[in-house]
Amino acid sequence: MKKKLLSLLIVLTGIPLATMASEADLVVPDLSMFKTLGTNGWNLLAWGLVIIVLGMLFGLYQFNRIKKYPSHKSMLNVANTIYETCKTYLLQQGRFLIILFLIIGAAIIYYFGFLARPEAAADGGISVFGFVSVILLWTVLGILGSYGVAWFGIRINTLANSRTSFASLQKNPFHVMSIPLQAGISVGMLLITVELIMMIIILLFVPGEIAGASFVGFAIGESLGASALRIAGGIFTKIADIGADLMKIVFKIGEDDPRNPGVIADCTGDNAGDSVGPTADGFETYGVTGVALITFIILMFGQTGILPDPMMASTLIVWIFAMRVMMIVTSAVAYWINNAISKVRFGNKDRFDFEQPLTSLVWITSIISIIVTFIVSYLLIGNIEGGLWWKLSFIISLGTIAAAIIPELTKAFTSSSSRHVKEVVNASREGGASLTILSGMVAGNFSAFWKGLVMMGLMAAGFFIVKDMTLFGEYPAIFAFGLIAFGFLGMGPVTIAVDSYGPVTDNAQSVFELSQIEKLDNIDTEIEKDFGFKPDFEKGKHRLEDNDSAGNTFKATAKPVLIGTAVIGATTMIFAIILLLSKTIIAGEPMLDIALTSAPVLLGLITGGAVIYWFSGASMQAVTTGAYRAVEFIKKHINLNKKEADINDSKSVVKICTQYAQNGMWNIFAVIFSLTLAFAFFDPNFFVAYLISIAVFGLFQAMYMANAGGAWDNAKKVVEVDLNEKNTPLHDATVVGDTVGDPYKDTTSVALNPIIKFSTLFGLLAAEISIEMMVHADKTDSFNYAPVIGAVLFVVGLVFAYRSFYSMRIPRKTIE
Amino acid sequence: MKKKLLSLLIVLTGIPLATMASEADLVVPDLSMFKTLGTNGWNLLAWGLVIIVLGMLFGLYQFNRIKKYPSHKSMLNVANTIYETCKTYLLQQGRFLIILFLIIGAAIIYYFGFLARPEAAADGGISVFGFVSVILLWTVLGILGSYGVAWFGIRINTLANSRTSFASLQKNPFHVMSIPLQAGISVGMLLITVELIMMIIILLFVPGEIAGASFVGFAIGESLGASALRIAGGIFTKIADIGADLMKIVFKIGEDDPRNPGVIADCTGDNAGDSVGPTADGFETYGVTGVALITFIILMFGQTGILPDPMMASTLIVWIFAMRVMMIVTSAVAYWINNAISKVRFGNKDRFDFEQPLTSLVWITSIISIIVTFIVSYLLIGNIEGGLWWKLSFIISLGTIAAAIIPELTKAFTSSSSRHVKEVVNASREGGASLTILSGMVAGNFSAFWKGLVMMGLMAAGFFIVKDMTLFGEYPAIFAFGLIAFGFLGMGPVTIAVDSYGPVTDNAQSVFELSQIEKLDNIDTEIEKDFGFKPDFEKGKHRLEDNDSAGNTFKATAKPVLIGTAVIGATTMIFAIILLLSKTIIAGEPMLDIALTSAPVLLGLITGGAVIYWFSGASMQAVTTGAYRAVEFIKKHINLNKKEADINDSKSVVKICTQYAQNGMWNIFAVIFSLTLAFAFFDPNFFVAYLISIAVFGLFQAMYMANAGGAWDNAKKVVEVDLNEKNTPLHDATVVGDTVGDPYKDTTSVALNPIIKFSTLFGLLAAEISIEMMVHADKTDSFNYAPVIGAVLFVVGLVFAYRSFYSMRIPRKTIE
Repeated sequence: MKKKLLSLLIVLTGIPLATMASEADLVVPDLSMFKTLGTNGWNLLAWGLVIIVLGMLFGLYQFNRIKKYPSHKSMLNVANTIYETCKTYLLQQGRFLIILFLIIGAAIIYYFGFLARPEAAADGGISVFGFVSVILLWTVLGILGSYGVAWFGIRINTLANSRTSFASLQKNPFHVMSIPLQAGISVGMLLITVELIMMIIILLFVPGEIAGASFVGFAIGESLGASALRIAGGIFTKIADIGADLMKIVFKIGEDDPRNPGVIADCTGDNAGDSVGPTADGFETYGVTGVALITFIILMFGQTGILPDPMMASTLIVWIFAMRVMMIVTSAVAYWINNAISKVRFGNKDRFDFEQPLTSLVWITSIISIIVTFIVSYLLIGNIEGGLWWKLSFIISLGTIAAAIIPELTKAFTSSSSRHVKEVVNASREGGASLTILSGMVAGNFSAFWKGLVMMGLMAAGFFIVKDMTLFGEYPAIFAFGLIAFGFLGMGPVTIAVDSYGPVTDNAQSVFELSQIEKLDNIDTEIEKDFGFKPDFEKGKHRLEDNDSAGNTFKATAKPVLIGTAVIGATTMIFAIILLLSKTIIAGEPMLDIALTSAPVLLGLITGGAVIYWFSGASMQAVTTGAYRAVEFIKKHINLNKKEADINDSKSVVKICTQYAQNGMWNIFAVIFSLTLAFAFFDPNFFVAYLISIAVFGLFQAMYMANAGGAWDNAKKVVEVDLNEKNTPLHDATVVGDTVGDPYKDTTSVALNPIIKFSTLFGLLAAEISIEMMVHADKTDSFNYAPVIGAVLFVVGLVFAYRSFYSMRIPRKTIE
Repeated sequence: MKKKLLSLLIVLTGIPLATMASEADLVVPDLSMFKTLGTNGWNLLAWGLVIIVLGMLFGLYQFNRIKKYPSHKSMLNVANTIYETCKTYLLQQGRFLIILFLIIGAAIIYYFGFLARPEAAADGGISVFGFVSVILLWTVLGILGSYGVAWFGIRINTLANSRTSFASLQKNPFHVMSIPLQAGISVGMLLITVELIMMIIILLFVPGEIAGASFVGFAIGESLGASALRIAGGIFTKIADIGADLMKIVFKIGEDDPRNPGVIADCTGDNAGDSVGPTADGFETYGVTGVALITFIILMFGQTGILPDPMMASTLIVWIFAMRVMMIVTSAVAYWINNAISKVRFGNKDRFDFEQPLTSLVWITSIISIIVTFIVSYLLIGNIEGGLWWKLSFIISLGTIAAAIIPELTKAFTSSSSRHVKEVVNASREGGASLTILSGMVAGNFSAFWKGLVMMGLMAAGFFIVKDMTLFGEYPAIFAFGLIAFGFLGMGPVTIAVDSYGPVTDNAQSVFELSQIEKLDNIDTEIEKDFGFKPDFEKGKHRLEDNDSAGNTFKATAKPVLIGTAVIGATTMIFAIILLLSKTIIAGEPMLDIALTSAPVLLGLITGGAVIYWFSGASMQAVTTGAYRAVEFIKKHINLNKKEADINDSKSVVKICTQYAQNGMWNIFAVIFSLTLAFAFFDPNFFVAYLISIAVFGLFQAMYMANAGGAWDNAKKVVEVDLNEKNTPLHDATVVGDTVGDPYKDTTSVALNPIIKFSTLFGLLAAEISIEMMVHADKTDSFNYAPVIGAVLFVVGLVFAYRSFYSMRIPRKTIE
């Protein structure tokens, strides 16, 4: 509680200074020119709404179909227990989000209500109270959106896990693949449609004067929700996972042994980490990238923009939305085609490579997407001179191609059949855990290099296309990079679908073991009687192992796509502040000073690196210390003579996981929150460099960690499944690799994207306040308090950074 | 050989285009205005020369004193074997350096002989042939300098190791500490004096017209030598170290067990990695930082500078040299004072904390340095208005303080008594190797955060002091950052001395075990007869363990200082190219475009990150694959029934280490070489951003890796010495941590500094060629070939990057 109060204080520090600021020059775009949107534009958007509703129905339809798949009641029981634990976890998270919202809400009230009370709102006859309420409402809706889709994801996954598990016993394993994919596409479809519906509602029904602010509020809400769910989920899941996994070495028991009280926590964690996290993250990413692009267009072409042309602005925004809406159609069609093809190819096979249908789904979607992009662009903006339609389509397609190439590249480093994973296994054989670790890191490092270069190359290609275009004035690259990020997300529902495949397959395996179905009396006859087929348990187990490996690989594919948007979109997101700086004159000179030779820029770049390394350390420390507690507890309480774990012990493990996840998250949020504000108050140029730096550093750290983790995970799988060398020293070595990879891939790397986005969005508001204060001090020749506020917040941030290790240490004093 | 030819080809690609370029606008500074240097200046420099010679004699005197310390012949024999193996290694490295020089030499001939034939040289009546020869000569001298001090270091260390080992048997352990420190100060002193003598010779005796080019040639030679010795040494030492260490777990044998054929290679590696590497690196760093500052001063105040004022230029350069020369005096005095104090405090103690005298040496030196800096500055530049003397002294002192604070911070993360190391041990106890690894990484991450912030803070302080100074025109920050980097190195001989402490103490322990002195017949009486004291073997062992732990900690202190100069000095180093870009007009606009919103800058920042991650992966892969071979070999050939290892087996292990070190290095050099040139040819603005990016990314990666490695190493030491739990599961876990940390701290992190410096220096020449070509194409309206050359080199670089994993894999196919 002490911590919470301190965090609140951080925000309040600024309030006494509120009255000093004046003439706010809003970073938030004014969307009132949307009144000029032609009837065609409105009609298109309205039609979009219809398609979105259909997409949503598609998602719900899949949900219902999954519910109808059969499963044995022993499995359904286990799945239900998992769901119930997940519910407890989510409710706890919900409470945390409410507190976070109160803090952020205070900042928003301060900002919009006191400091930046826009003239536009007053003109439009809207009271300040009404104005602030609308923004707060949209922040809440943003948080609820992230939270809601996460909940939907957990619900559908805990339905799909038992059904996938049961399907593995059947003659043909087709459903072992199709059920998780169906669950995935259902989550993906719902996520995108909810996102779009909210954004279109803002555009169609919210008055133009406050639509811009609503967008920003919505984006902040989303990324706040996503950050919290990613961080806490990531810590929770990996404490449980490491705790459960290490017992395999210590007691020589199998994966998901029901006697191990860590297993239920692990299953919950799979959902909390791999399902809640990515869905919330995806929801945030789609929203924020869209908002960034819309903001750019309005700052560029809005009534008070650089090159005012409201018609162009409306056209481009309608075009952006049309692209997004078409994504729903293409994803549905691609899913349907791929399903039909897969049925023909694999429907009657006894065994097949589960990665194949997922790969083909990604490629089919990307090809259709690209074609549709060109057609729709031609129809909507084909009349604009200079071949705008094909240039923009081409740039978006670069992003879409990246979203298809990156999974392929990911496979080269993390797939069970990749040379890198083989190298990890080979190295482990002679060198034990030492070389397992080093070899996995090598995989991660190389993947960061190649993926980084691919992104760089695609961005360079996009830049070359727009380089000589006069339409975007001095800033063509910014729009191009924003569009590439947009294109990255061009097959949204499918990207989310293949990513959500993993937690279902992972759970399916656990459900199988925990249900102990094989050992039930007369189970063969019972199943034959009730379900009409003879179960094959051995084959089933093997299929679930294979399927989990495919899930591991594809779980690693969405991560680089999501983090990629953070860095590619970074410039688009900070464009507003750069523009404001270039327009602000202090002591006779424009404030903008972002050349690489300028000291604030270099200092900002260094500081960004420092914060990313701190975050890596702090998030891993939370896992380490929690895992220690979990391991200690489990070692003490495990009873190998029983048939299953004590339910109270299982609950205790869940409690340990939750406790450390919460503690870790509080410290991390307090640091991020205070440092972001501190840097924004110090100096806006420094802050811009800082934001670019965390994006670039975050990109590489995330790719490295995600893929090293993936390689270790699948190296362990190879030893277990392909080599069948469980409980050997080789296996022990790969288990060590896997457990190191756990926080790498599922805690630290995945949280970087929402953290970067949140820092950027929230910090931009603070930077604007700081600029206001500077201008005021310059004009009235009075003292500028902004750096002082910055210094106070900086110290607060450092205290929490200190605490994020020293107050999170392992409690037991082994040595002192 | 194939590879070597290919690398040569890289350089030759550019040659046909040589004739296109014209009117070279030299990046290399023209030092001819040194003719204006007043008599006082010349006198000062000449006096400096005298002090330097005295410093050199001090170094050689210490060398001779060490030689006279007694040791038993069994120990001397072992030390001699180590020295002989080191010699073989160094000779091999020498051959490699010759080949590298041929490649770089070709580039230099092309650049100075054909492309940038400076008018100045022609005016001064010096032929082009003579001009190029002088530069090549200085490049050779640079390489020889790096190589020579490395050789001196190895020679003195292999004398000191056996004497330290023997000293541990005496009643008082004072000499156990004082001998390695004496060896260290001897290396440090010689290194700095050789460096300075060469630079002053250039200044005093080389004609001004070619002095600038000589400086650049010298710097390139130094950093080439240092890079090669750091990379190869780093790979060699860690293959051997991991190979030897893992046998401890597999066969439950002790550290340095003579039956282990990996031990001799390990001892050689300690010298190749921890002695050769840092001395060559230090030599390079002192030279390059000096050259960067001199270049800045001349570009600023030289006859053709931004604010021409040759008198100011001479004064500042003399001041810079005076600062360096005084460093020799202060270090000698501080060493002498510290030695006297230590003798009083610890001379008669039976046991004392070996870290204490090293810590006090660092602090005494830094305090004296700061005082001397202010006094000498007042005397030399006290007459310049605006309080220049105290401002510049203050900035240098910031760097000097950093060089004292950073070791303290390092201790907080890596010292045996630090809370981070305790956390690693605690985590290992319940969580095994998994939590050992994670916890060590946490230490590394947090250290990168805090150290990064300290550097940022000091740079910011320096910037605030110069911010409003008009003396440096638009570029005050660049000079300030250069001076801080200079100040970082302000107690050179001492920084090198405490860093060189480690390899001697490490070797001393090995010499003790390998000599098997305890088991010799009548050894007690023999020693009493010949040396006049009764040996205590048990105490001796314990003292050497303690001493090694102190060595580990201080080995970690110089690394952040050296890498720190790379990033802080980066802007100073690239200043020449930035200036050139701002003066070059293409299509009516200045070429300089380094704002953060510019696409080339963002792409450059991303690319820099990619290359640092690649380098981390490639260097660790060389170690992994080599270590695999070493382990495989040792496991097969170790014979625990013998008393000592087969000498042929030992040689085979050395051969494996050498082979993989060479292979790894070839690939790495080919990539660095081609990518650096490629990026320089692509686009100079992109290249500038790339250089800044590798410096900032390199800084954090290096600090993280160095300190994580240090924490793991000392966690193992704590388990072995303090807890006395050798051969327990806890010990095994910490050995895994230590072996992962080996390439972290001693291969990858340490090579980053010379690699960054080499890329910067060598790439700047290429960037200038590229600018010339662009200007030429613009003027004559012809095609610009530079990007094409860039593309070709880029592809070559990618091929080698691909090979740096795929052709370096573990040869045995365990699974396929």
